[in-house]
Amino acid sequence: MKLPIRTLMGPGPLDVHPRVLAAMSQPLLGHLDPVFLDMMNRMMDKLRYVFETKNELTLAMSGTGSAGMETVFVNLVEPGDKVIVGVNGLFGTRMADVASRLGAEVIPIEQEWGLPIAPEQIERALTQNPDTKFVALVHAETSTGVWQPLDEIAQVVNKFDALLIVDAVTSLAGIPVQVDKHKIDACYSGTQKCVGAPPGLAPVTLSPKAFDVLKQRKSKVPNWYLDLTMIANYWGQERFYHHTAPISMIYALFEALTLIEEEGLSNVYARHLLNGRALQAGLQAMGLEMVVKEERYRLPQLTAVRIPDGIQDTQVRGLLLERYGIEIGGGLGPFKGKVWRIGLMGYSSSRKNVLLFLAALEDILNELGYTKNRNLAVEVASKFYASAIS
Amino acid sequence: MKLPIRTLMGPGPLDVHPRVLAAMSQPLLGHLDPVFLDMMNRMMDKLRYVFETKNELTLAMSGTGSAGMETVFVNLVEPGDKVIVGVNGLFGTRMADVASRLGAEVIPIEQEWGLPIAPEQIERALTQNPDTKFVALVHAETSTGVWQPLDEIAQVVNKFDALLIVDAVTSLAGIPVQVDKHKIDACYSGTQKCVGAPPGLAPVTLSPKAFDVLKQRKSKVPNWYLDLTMIANYWGQERFYHHTAPISMIYALFEALTLIEEEGLSNVYARHLLNGRALQAGLQAMGLEMVVKEERYRLPQLTAVRIPDGIQDTQVRGLLLERYGIEIGGGLGPFKGKVWRIGLMGYSSSRKNVLLFLAALEDILNELGYTKNRNLAVEVASKFYASAIS
Repeated sequence: MKLPIRTLMGPGPLDVHPRVLAAMSQPLLGHLDPVFLDMMNRMMDKLRYVFETKNELTLAMSGTGSAGMETVFVNLVEPGDKVIVGVNGLFGTRMADVASRLGAEVIPIEQEWGLPIAPEQIERALTQNPDTKFVALVHAETSTGVWQPLDEIAQVVNKFDALLIVDAVTSLAGIPVQVDKHKIDACYSGTQKCVGAPPGLAPVTLSPKAFDVLKQRKSKVPNWYLDLTMIANYWGQERFYHHTAPISMIYALFEALTLIEEEGLSNVYARHLLNGRALQAGLQAMGLEMVVKEERYRLPQLTAVRIPDGIQDTQVRGLLLERYGIEIGGGLGPFKGKVWRIGLMGYSSSRKNVLLFLAALEDILNELGYTKNRNLAVEVASKFYASAIS
Repeated sequence: MKLPIRTLMGPGPLDVHPRVLAAMSQPLLGHLDPVFLDMMNRMMDKLRYVFETKNELTLAMSGTGSAGMETVFVNLVEPGDKVIVGVNGLFGTRMADVASRLGAEVIPIEQEWGLPIAPEQIERALTQNPDTKFVALVHAETSTGVWQPLDEIAQVVNKFDALLIVDAVTSLAGIPVQVDKHKIDACYSGTQKCVGAPPGLAPVTLSPKAFDVLKQRKSKVPNWYLDLTMIANYWGQERFYHHTAPISMIYALFEALTLIEEEGLSNVYARHLLNGRALQAGLQAMGLEMVVKEERYRLPQLTAVRIPDGIQDTQVRGLLLERYGIEIGGGLGPFKGKVWRIGLMGYSSSRKNVLLFLAALEDILNELGYTKNRNLAVEVASKFYASAIS
């Protein structure tokens, strides 16, 4: 198995810490081994820490982040339920698709790609549809780089007594998700973003209120594999066999969460913020335009930047990969060929990666005749670090 | 991360080859990296080899073996479809549950745990229900150790123009599955059994006929995450982004399948058969009773044996674990406390493990007063090997 060594700076997966890689190469334990069961218990506590919740039903589903989305919707939504979905990027669109396949009456709240959903939009939709059961939002839109503020919207949703579903795939352990503070009823994530593990598991948490909705379903969950009532019995005291947990992935997530504990969640957030803003300062110094104009709505861990006129998307990404082994992401849907997406998540959110990437991109854009001042971006980012840290 | 070292000889997961563990500790590639995409292409060929099929739609789903079951049913079955399900163990019961949650009209064909489903049972059910769309069987029942013959039943199903679904979770790469020979229309497996990787992926293959059924669905697949039309586009030439593949698990499966290729599939089958029969000879020499009486219906890779009267299940399994680090499985459902399940699958199917286990079990049963002749089982197994090999 001969694999090239990359520096992953796209929308995910990202490079993971060597300790996480080492964890996966440990020999396996059985999925009902007392040592493994103890690890699962401790894992639930570690997940509560990053979700900032006391929710008992907090665990990792055996699938990728998209399985987290599927889990939340298939367990909670029943045919005919009204679901308001914020649609301002690919993952909002996906939530609407997932919910409608389950027979929900989806009310899409649309917003231009690159802007957040406004609290007023949700309030208006809830006023027109007071029987709405769920409001679903993407906290960190990986397709656009938008940071969706939750505070005001959560209050609106609460006032109307609907349940709040939040997609935290790209936000968990990157920016504060604060499940309890925002009274989020259902929240899911992936492991391959800021959590800092390979893809393959989906952390999920449900509030007691959401768990009640699940318990009071009229029909069985139409998905055996993701049925949370059964899976909760496996993660719970009963240890009732459901499916065989993906042991090696659990090791990886356990180690990644241990790294977060060791660093401290507030330090983890500060690191993501600092590196993201430094990168953005450097990109802007090169004259590149941010997809998200207002900084307060701009994620630090995932930056979407417009590709300048006359520059070929795939040529630049190809050169980054060939010459430097750096992977960044292209645009999705309407952004295809028009946007680059640069990820600084988990272990990959480092000053080293910021300077490396800016230097590499400037090198290539100089060569293609777009920029003239080699290392201007690096200089600006370096100064940003100096002033931010002093 | 301090983990004890076990010898896993239960129903799965099992010990995996050090090369498979090493593969997982490789740094990640992006899921759209050209090198990774090439690996996925080669993976499909490797899967076709073990399934013994030319089916184009042959890939690995991003979930455990149970997700494979869910995938096949949720993609093919529509509400109202008649599905005949062979129910002679836990996994047949589960198939019936999965299908009924999707609105299928399930016709369970019951058989005593420990016996296979008879072709006549299927023929009778099909005669009474000629509009049956699917017949679903478990090839290797992990709860009982039954080896379900497929040849005659496949002919019956074919005669009635129904589609044949086969659960090959515990059979793939342990005993011949032969998808094309048996005209199996949909087959799924897991990675943590005879395939020899950790749990976390579900190999799936669909015949062109089954793929047509999928394409002609009246309604969208009610499961976004497992929708094979979209996933086939990601694995296919289009490389259309669906979800982020679990990179490290793909590495593990790739390496495990490479090991199978290197050994050769017929040698792999012969090894499983030899070690399984040697184990069974040893167990019977100790006076233990097989759950599956007739050898032709008894799996070599998973042996279910009755716990003798007066012997406590958990005491023996506890001593095996504490004293020797050996894990075997207990019984499920009606077999709880009454049966042990011993797995010899993939890398763990070795002469070394057979002798170690027989010696360890005899040691403990001697101590508990059940057996008297220390090492009788070991002697019988050793002689079995000598005669089988000469």
